[in-house]
Amino acid sequence: MEQKADIAVIGLAVMGQNLILNMNDHGFTVVAHNRTVAKVDDFLAGPAKGTNIIGAKSIEEMMGLLKRPRRIMFMVKAGNPVDAAIEQVLPFCEPGDCIIDGGNSHFTDTIRRTRYLEEKGLLFIGTGVSGGEEGARHGPSMMPGGSVKAWPLVKDLFTAIAAKTPDGISCCDWVGADGAGHYVKMAHNAIEYGDMQIICEAYQLMRQGLGLSHAVMHDIFKQWNRTELDSYLIEITADIMAVNDEDGAPLVEKILDAAGQKGTGKWFSINSLDLGIPVTLIAEAVYARSLSALKDERVAASRMLAGPAVSFEGDIEEFVEDIRKALLASKIISYTQGFMCIREAAGEYGWDLDYGSIALLWREGCIIRSVFLEKISAAYRSNPQLVNLLLDDYFTSIIISCQESWRRVIAKAVELGVPVPALSSALAFYDGYRCEKLPANLLQAQRDYFGAHTYERTDRPRKEFFHTNWTGRGGDVASGTYEV
Amino acid sequence: MEQKADIAVIGLAVMGQNLILNMNDHGFTVVAHNRTVAKVDDFLAGPAKGTNIIGAKSIEEMMGLLKRPRRIMFMVKAGNPVDAAIEQVLPFCEPGDCIIDGGNSHFTDTIRRTRYLEEKGLLFIGTGVSGGEEGARHGPSMMPGGSVKAWPLVKDLFTAIAAKTPDGISCCDWVGADGAGHYVKMAHNAIEYGDMQIICEAYQLMRQGLGLSHAVMHDIFKQWNRTELDSYLIEITADIMAVNDEDGAPLVEKILDAAGQKGTGKWFSINSLDLGIPVTLIAEAVYARSLSALKDERVAASRMLAGPAVSFEGDIEEFVEDIRKALLASKIISYTQGFMCIREAAGEYGWDLDYGSIALLWREGCIIRSVFLEKISAAYRSNPQLVNLLLDDYFTSIIISCQESWRRVIAKAVELGVPVPALSSALAFYDGYRCEKLPANLLQAQRDYFGAHTYERTDRPRKEFFHTNWTGRGGDVASGTYEV
Repeated sequence: MEQKADIAVIGLAVMGQNLILNMNDHGFTVVAHNRTVAKVDDFLAGPAKGTNIIGAKSIEEMMGLLKRPRRIMFMVKAGNPVDAAIEQVLPFCEPGDCIIDGGNSHFTDTIRRTRYLEEKGLLFIGTGVSGGEEGARHGPSMMPGGSVKAWPLVKDLFTAIAAKTPDGISCCDWVGADGAGHYVKMAHNAIEYGDMQIICEAYQLMRQGLGLSHAVMHDIFKQWNRTELDSYLIEITADIMAVNDEDGAPLVEKILDAAGQKGTGKWFSINSLDLGIPVTLIAEAVYARSLSALKDERVAASRMLAGPAVSFEGDIEEFVEDIRKALLASKIISYTQGFMCIREAAGEYGWDLDYGSIALLWREGCIIRSVFLEKISAAYRSNPQLVNLLLDDYFTSIIISCQESWRRVIAKAVELGVPVPALSSALAFYDGYRCEKLPANLLQAQRDYFGAHTYERTDRPRKEFFHTNWTGRGGDVASGTYEV
Repeated sequence: MEQKADIAVIGLAVMGQNLILNMNDHGFTVVAHNRTVAKVDDFLAGPAKGTNIIGAKSIEEMMGLLKRPRRIMFMVKAGNPVDAAIEQVLPFCEPGDCIIDGGNSHFTDTIRRTRYLEEKGLLFIGTGVSGGEEGARHGPSMMPGGSVKAWPLVKDLFTAIAAKTPDGISCCDWVGADGAGHYVKMAHNAIEYGDMQIICEAYQLMRQGLGLSHAVMHDIFKQWNRTELDSYLIEITADIMAVNDEDGAPLVEKILDAAGQKGTGKWFSINSLDLGIPVTLIAEAVYARSLSALKDERVAASRMLAGPAVSFEGDIEEFVEDIRKALLASKIISYTQGFMCIREAAGEYGWDLDYGSIALLWREGCIIRSVFLEKISAAYRSNPQLVNLLLDDYFTSIIISCQESWRRVIAKAVELGVPVPALSSALAFYDGYRCEKLPANLLQAQRDYFGAHTYERTDRPRKEFFHTNWTGRGGDVASGTYEV
């Protein structure tokens, strides 16, 4: 067998097929394999017909067709199937070969697999691939991490097939060691949860609060897409508003308001709790999906739990602009929280991350692609040590210019009884983050009162702990190190 | 050796010592042991002097002193120390002996340990013990779960030493199989996080928003404690407001506003994400602690991120009453969410739980003890199948009577720039739960647009999935099972 192929791809579901076709378009020779071998024939006789794509009926055949060091990419379901595929390929590998996992794996699995394969003299990459079938076919956002030595082996191929920014920069760059790529992909998906939720809340305000028609909302979203909100998700929302069902009524209103969730938003929320970073907007977005799923309970509750008997009064056009600004401010909070968590993760897991580069990876090719990401990238480029996105001049000035509108929107939503969990959580975070004195001093007093947990004082150095016998009765025993 | 002791307790830290003294008071003979044996001598010569408490210098000696079947209780740190203690005791155990873990173990560890010990013919109990040293000494809230056969062995002892409700009911009852007791203890601690956070937000509104003095806030909390809010945490908050530092200024204002967290609030939030139950208030409370810990960042941000230039105008007394009602309504939401999650967990982990009984376990002896819990217990007693606490007549009528005040408080907080993440999250949940049509229909349309995820329709049966080619361009391939 002639060893002429650049890469092998195992897994011929939609994503795998499209990624292979994309590689082929860019002049790479790909070997395609699938556990159910009939799929290989179907693919070669179908979408791959007339291309340079080679089919392989077995792992052994596939491995024999590859140039050395071999590159083998899995496009299989996350979880056990990845471990199973690794074990299948392992017996045929030679030192220096590189295995690539292009699925939605949890970053801790990727950390584990990188160690496991490096111990065997192999290289491993776990890469996020975002943008759905369309992205995979014509240019996804790609977020590779893993064995640092593996990057030169795949750099040309990955950067060629990935999406490009308007300036021609590839939306693929090395993220960092072991699980860093899959971590950043998880963060991307979680931010997608947040973006979708705040758009939904803006829509709910216009639908339930203002009673706007879908034609009007279509125009509004189209207009918003010519502002700082310019993004794929706003664009498709405008499209959706314009689609009618066969009876001429808006199709979106026929869709059941019960959303599923595939897990990455949940993973990120859990990780943020573990790291102690307040990623409140995304957590609220995940919980909002859970609440939506309780459809029958909500229908029953809607008949028993009265809302306010108030309807909107005021200038609709002005309020729509207020909603736009509330959406923009909340989006800034969501990305701020997301990058706070990524930064904490970098410290926790030992990754050296380039935040400006990460923002650019999402600029095109993926669901959260937007003009906005260029501003984030610029913020980190101008100050790589930026502690918090909110403290970048551009974002500071935008959020301050939005805040009056934002406050009016939340106040009005609360008055009208329209649920805006993510928009209001974002504002609470903003007011908390810019609050010099939060009420946690009372909380520490309570804990010291009932559990002798001790506290620090504002007029004494940190790490000096005090206990007070608050009642004047009972014991003076503190659980800390210092008593007063 | 005479086998006369009723129970052995391993671990002579504060909680262990106090629990032993409590057992001794109730006429039980306790053997006390500690890994560092000097602590046994100190205890016998100190707090245990003149009691019937027996010291044991070794596990073997301890086991020899116990009546059969033996009961051995661990009051050691959660995690590995519990497993280590089990392995130490195991060689001396006989079939039918019962090991009890009284620490703050994660319920999944308790599930695992129950199986492990039952396989060896032993019995295991994991019990929540709440109320700190004071509770342990004079009557804690106790939440035992584990091997069902073990309950009769400890029932008399546990119910004797536990706190009692005003009607004389013991705040200890069997919760359920394997990890159920520790699960309910975790829920208790998480609800404690929520209760503390909403009290802190009420305080912040009065301090930052209204500029009230601590003398006035002391009176307000005292007065609130004579209403439906009557609870230990409100009582100690009133006490705290009255305590001055040596210079005569309120001590609470000298305490650093940076709170720690010991994990159970986080555990419960993570579990709620896994179960898909929107426990938003507690998650916001956990995140609020994380945000408080970023003290230096907040101080810096407070100088860069301007708030609204507005101060409170209106009737202070009326607004304070609004705050009280907002607090009460939010507390109802927090317990509602907590019980939603406990109910889901019961289904998920196979526990047969009595929700009315659980509420009564917390009625006395623990940090969240309150009159309020009697109302929850009554709601579940009158309808054990109650789907949601909000749908109980008592809670429905209270929350409806509070909602105007609640809305005014959130609107005003937002206008003034006072962060109220938990109070506002609670209101967003209320408005979401009573919302027949949430905007998740748009979210499903978006997912179908970019990922062909398919959707269900309101005018067709559930589980029938539809896909739309939203743009009129490109592929029609749905990832679901049904196409239109």
